[in-house]
Amino acid sequence: MNVLIVHAHPETGSFNAAMTRQAEATLAGAGHEVVVSDLYAMGFNPVSNRHNFMTVADSRTLRLQTEEAHASTHDGFVPELQAEMDKLARCDLLIFQFPIWWLGLPAILKGWVDRVFAVGRAYGGGRYFDRGVFQGKRAMCAVTVGGFRAAYSERGVYAEVEDILYPVHRGIFGFTGFTVIEPFVVYAPGRIETDERRRYLDRYHERLLDLDRARIIQPLATALYENGVLTAARD
Amino acid sequence: MNVLIVHAHPETGSFNAAMTRQAEATLAGAGHEVVVSDLYAMGFNPVSNRHNFMTVADSRTLRLQTEEAHASTHDGFVPELQAEMDKLARCDLLIFQFPIWWLGLPAILKGWVDRVFAVGRAYGGGRYFDRGVFQGKRAMCAVTVGGFRAAYSERGVYAEVEDILYPVHRGIFGFTGFTVIEPFVVYAPGRIETDERRRYLDRYHERLLDLDRARIIQPLATALYENGVLTAARD
Repeated sequence: MNVLIVHAHPETGSFNAAMTRQAEATLAGAGHEVVVSDLYAMGFNPVSNRHNFMTVADSRTLRLQTEEAHASTHDGFVPELQAEMDKLARCDLLIFQFPIWWLGLPAILKGWVDRVFAVGRAYGGGRYFDRGVFQGKRAMCAVTVGGFRAAYSERGVYAEVEDILYPVHRGIFGFTGFTVIEPFVVYAPGRIETDERRRYLDRYHERLLDLDRARIIQPLATALYENGVLTAARD
Repeated sequence: MNVLIVHAHPETGSFNAAMTRQAEATLAGAGHEVVVSDLYAMGFNPVSNRHNFMTVADSRTLRLQTEEAHASTHDGFVPELQAEMDKLARCDLLIFQFPIWWLGLPAILKGWVDRVFAVGRAYGGGRYFDRGVFQGKRAMCAVTVGGFRAAYSERGVYAEVEDILYPVHRGIFGFTGFTVIEPFVVYAPGRIETDERRRYLDRYHERLLDLDRARIIQPLATALYENGVLTAARD
């Protein structure tokens, strides 16, 4: 299996970094190829703009999707994006490793998606959801959150982490055809003891060795929809 | 009223740019002060890192919240961030103007939040939700989405736009004490006729003149919670 870990944390001493090292060790130890895009270490620029492209479809008005479609048929993405697109195309398993900041992705990772998941490379031409470009690949979030589990629940100040990740699961992974594996969530790594952190890493090791048994988040069946709206009866 | 519009679109000919121009004209015409942070035009760097700070609390391990707390008591934020923090502190109304990309904020805007909403400036010391730093201020999203309204509904491939914006409403605006006004949503501006786009701008003009009657998204009452968990009975 080819694994791509997209890692989004600025500190090598962080628990996120420990999780990525654990994933590299576990997956390489099981015989898989592991590639890590360490976005902070790469100095990745997350701002999507004309600088994404070496080609120009319309020099007057910038429409990113138009430029993406044009670049994808004219080999026009700048090398730093094409390299990430190639990693994405090659991987069988995609892992997003990040701390949840403001209930979402750190900007450096959001911008990796904004720029790398381009028309013609990640979607377009009717290829989405269960007809998506990345059908047959799997994707998973491995995240840390600052608070304890109870705060992220029906009775908590925030929704369940899995619901907070809806934009990633449905909008990014699901839309582009990935089979979405339930997230691996670490609560309050900065507020627990060393042995509890160690147990989290052990459980992450086990999860990664046993991905086939992890819960799958229900994919969307496009056959039931027309123009984005459910047409078949629900029951 | 002092209004801060944080504008996140790279193209001056876009409908997002037309909305920001409409808001400037409408609000200035009504006698308000309007400041626009045009993030693309400013070349805003959305990556949160040690470069946020002129001060250093811990030179070995980077913990962003620790550095933020330190910088906030030592006047240690770099000028480009301090300027945005000052705009935020001065405003009575905050508007995020952006296209929804991948069911979320464009990276340049997410990073504005990651960097500007710092400990000691936007939260900290028990100040959150209805005890938040920005109590008394109002905030609203003004957004475009690529698809038509029916796709964002109970029967659509995506949740309602208001639900998609949950991380912004609850996690960013609500958490820091803003009163959250229902979003103004433009569906498929690239796929409708000129007069329909004109009507959207007219309706946005009316919304901005009549904010007091706009629906408020239910705030969280911290008195009902302890350590982030609901303690009072629900009914």
